[in-house]
Amino acid sequence: MADESKSQVFPSDYLKEFSAKVFMHFGVPRSDAEQAADVLAKSDLRGIDSHGVARLHTYFDMFALGRINPKPDIKIVREKQSVATVDGDNGLGLVVGPKANEIAMEKAERHGSGWVSVRNTNHFGIAGYYPLKALERDLIGWAMTNTTKLVAPLFGAERMLGTNPIAIAFPGFAEPPIVIDMATSAVAYGKIQIALRKKTQVPHGWIVDKNGAPTTDPGDMIAGGAQLPLGSEADLGGHKGYALGAMVDILCAVLSGANWGPFAPPFALRQEIPARSVGKGIGHFFGAMQIDGFIDKDEFKKQIDEWRRVLGNTRPAAGTGGPLIPGDPEREAEAARSKEGIPLLKPVLDDLLDISRRTGVPFEAR
Amino acid sequence: MADESKSQVFPSDYLKEFSAKVFMHFGVPRSDAEQAADVLAKSDLRGIDSHGVARLHTYFDMFALGRINPKPDIKIVREKQSVATVDGDNGLGLVVGPKANEIAMEKAERHGSGWVSVRNTNHFGIAGYYPLKALERDLIGWAMTNTTKLVAPLFGAERMLGTNPIAIAFPGFAEPPIVIDMATSAVAYGKIQIALRKKTQVPHGWIVDKNGAPTTDPGDMIAGGAQLPLGSEADLGGHKGYALGAMVDILCAVLSGANWGPFAPPFALRQEIPARSVGKGIGHFFGAMQIDGFIDKDEFKKQIDEWRRVLGNTRPAAGTGGPLIPGDPEREAEAARSKEGIPLLKPVLDDLLDISRRTGVPFEAR
Repeated sequence: MADESKSQVFPSDYLKEFSAKVFMHFGVPRSDAEQAADVLAKSDLRGIDSHGVARLHTYFDMFALGRINPKPDIKIVREKQSVATVDGDNGLGLVVGPKANEIAMEKAERHGSGWVSVRNTNHFGIAGYYPLKALERDLIGWAMTNTTKLVAPLFGAERMLGTNPIAIAFPGFAEPPIVIDMATSAVAYGKIQIALRKKTQVPHGWIVDKNGAPTTDPGDMIAGGAQLPLGSEADLGGHKGYALGAMVDILCAVLSGANWGPFAPPFALRQEIPARSVGKGIGHFFGAMQIDGFIDKDEFKKQIDEWRRVLGNTRPAAGTGGPLIPGDPEREAEAARSKEGIPLLKPVLDDLLDISRRTGVPFEAR
Repeated sequence: MADESKSQVFPSDYLKEFSAKVFMHFGVPRSDAEQAADVLAKSDLRGIDSHGVARLHTYFDMFALGRINPKPDIKIVREKQSVATVDGDNGLGLVVGPKANEIAMEKAERHGSGWVSVRNTNHFGIAGYYPLKALERDLIGWAMTNTTKLVAPLFGAERMLGTNPIAIAFPGFAEPPIVIDMATSAVAYGKIQIALRKKTQVPHGWIVDKNGAPTTDPGDMIAGGAQLPLGSEADLGGHKGYALGAMVDILCAVLSGANWGPFAPPFALRQEIPARSVGKGIGHFFGAMQIDGFIDKDEFKKQIDEWRRVLGNTRPAAGTGGPLIPGDPEREAEAARSKEGIPLLKPVLDDLLDISRRTGVPFEAR
């Protein structure tokens, strides 16, 4: 078991350049490789370690097996003024996602809003990356993706849906934006992995065993169990988290013609490949809305500032620091890590060194 | 305390006609009154008793106090092809909502999608009513509304957001549609009211007391406490339910220029009136998407049928009947109640008799 307390720190740009070169090693054109590396770097900067360079080895594996197309012909297969479906030609989600998001934003600037469902794509990094791009253009941005099955519907004993995240962001005027980026499962899978490695129990409400019974042993989940949706159980609204996961699955995958529900192809090598295919690749869903189509843009942004102040001043629950504004922890991580660098745990570092050895792309541990 | 086990049954059409006449008594034009009554009737038919004629006395009170405009001039105040903001002129939400939803659907039919934020409106009934209308036109429909404050943000000790529901529906081909309609709080407020009347405890995770501390005594919530968001606590994702409630609040109220967060005006007479106003009325948000803009409509609907079959066949958790498809319990209630009628508890019946006495609109108890 790796000592997770030890880490080495690297400048974000160094890791980003390494990632880009690894993608280029597999034939990804430079601009696409840099785009893909930017998504991973943003995740590490924002403190979402599970979705940054910690995933580079998985992308490496997928390329090495020829499962991802390095030079996809990404195209609109159907559209109306404010909507479209994009086929990602089995490219990197880190490349297909930004292009489809760009189409949504262009439509928003022309027609007030743009909504793009995407098929034949792969994992696209953090959902929050996409609305952050919309903020740069003063748009309200949305992103969702379906993912490999991990979550049981409420009252189910098997994995049928992914952790299917929803992200949306609203720009402020003088204050920072409000950025929501959340999985529709009770917790991120990474938290269960940590408990597994540390051999600790997890809270009641995170997982069920292979019979669908509640358990606190993370080993029970690995042995044929599943994660629970947000809300966890019937009394606490587990049907609502399941419904949100279903909504994301349908908007991303049924609407685009991708593989939905339990048929979403796996991303990691150790995961089983579904026996059946009902579409192409996995699916994403992007949205963008032009604020000026609804209300004066500055008026909106000033009210968002005020919303932040009012909610931030909520009387704190005893023993807490009070409510946070969505996106603030990630923004604070980004401010710190931009200066101080990205700490990498030993297993992640070992992965990068392995990629370096196998691709010839240099990587210098400190 | 009323005996809740006793109820009298009335045909839906009888209650609908009574509601319409009550609205007309206050000067609401016939077509608007019938529209408003239809929303209430749909709620009772679908088994959501809290939002049907059980609320008629509150609408009656608001009209009697002159707090709702019976003849609103509902108009678009800003728009682009696929988006608009509507001012409801302080009309019944049961009238403003359907008109704004209609605008979203027309935009979807012309431009692929339509998104309408609404200000200066009042409570609009069940959120699920609106996507059900979209289904009649083979559209994917969305609806959200902000509501009077009841929910504390995670780590908060006071009410700052409403139960802010999200609804969305997807049409099937040979099978029924998938209809999601969920509050972003852990539970509906009605469940806490029932525990109060029955003097029972509620499950851990529903509410906090006036210090923001967890409690199972519903009296603690009434005495200055609050409901918890979906996810309930930090370990189980309470920040996610809070973020969803925030998203709904911003799309409905900040984007339209309505009162957001704790400033949403109260609907029931006993609730305090916020000291400050930051906009007009409460807000709604409607969306509609034309399926053909993304994918062949029949292909989509057949995949929705298959989605239903696959998810419906999830292996059941031990001791359960297995997962439900969102919207099925309400659809089954509607099938039964359309034939058998709507059961009204004595307190609701008493309310209707009181309205009858005070308006002169006849109502015959059985």
